Amino acid sequence: MTRRELAVLEPTSAAACCVPLAAPDLTDDDAAATARLFKALADPHRVRIVNLLATTGEPVCGCDLERPLGLSQPTVSFHLKKLADAGLLDREKRGVWAYWSLNPSAARRVGEVLRLERKGTR
Amino acid sequence: MTRRELAVLEPTSAAACCVPLAAPDLTDDDAAATARLFKALADPHRVRIVNLLATTGEPVCGCDLERPLGLSQPTVSFHLKKLADAGLLDREKRGVWAYWSLNPSAARRVGEVLRLERKGTR
Repeated sequence: MTRRELAVLEPTSAAACCVPLAAPDLTDDDAAATARLFKALADPHRVRIVNLLATTGEPVCGCDLERPLGLSQPTVSFHLKKLADAGLLDREKRGVWAYWSLNPSAARRVGEVLRLERKGTR
Repeated sequence: MTRRELAVLEPTSAAACCVPLAAPDLTDDDAAATARLFKALADPHRVRIVNLLATTGEPVCGCDLERPLGLSQPTVSFHLKKLADAGLLDREKRGVWAYWSLNPSAARRVGEVLRLERKGTR
């Protein structure tokens, strides 16, 4: 099974799928998966969550995100789920709390997606 | 006037505003502008348009985008406008046609936005 077939079969793993926006062979499936990744990030609260996790650099308790985001726990959970469904976050249970961190390989891959400058492809 | 003030005053220039997602000092305005940029790209047709312009590397007539995208001219124009409003595209008039290309500096900047890996900030 190829990576692209996986992108179709597993729509929750947007971050696992994406090829750079300037790739010469972007398929319709690639485009759909890339759009899903951007959709997961197309919200200011989710941008802030990713920023908080990226700058903290260690797992953060969901309970510690309410105050910096100024959001209720259910709303924080909603946004965390959107990011996790896109494959951007890892979740680790510690007692009654869930701790969240950026998925390291997803972070590397999404960094490649938006490289629009062409590198000697013509 | 600073870059961040411009991001607030000029909501159509999402690509002109954004700081990396892992920036240690992301403000609410930065987060909103970054989310706008992702929203502009959160559509498979717009991902394909950016991909087509990135791989072509020269201005493309809007009239030549209908067939590869499989979309009607009004729909192509709608998506081109969304991307142009986000500051990602440049528009150049040639006779009766509009030619579109990626804004080079926007392309460079958006490449920085998704760099999630921290570079020795702590």
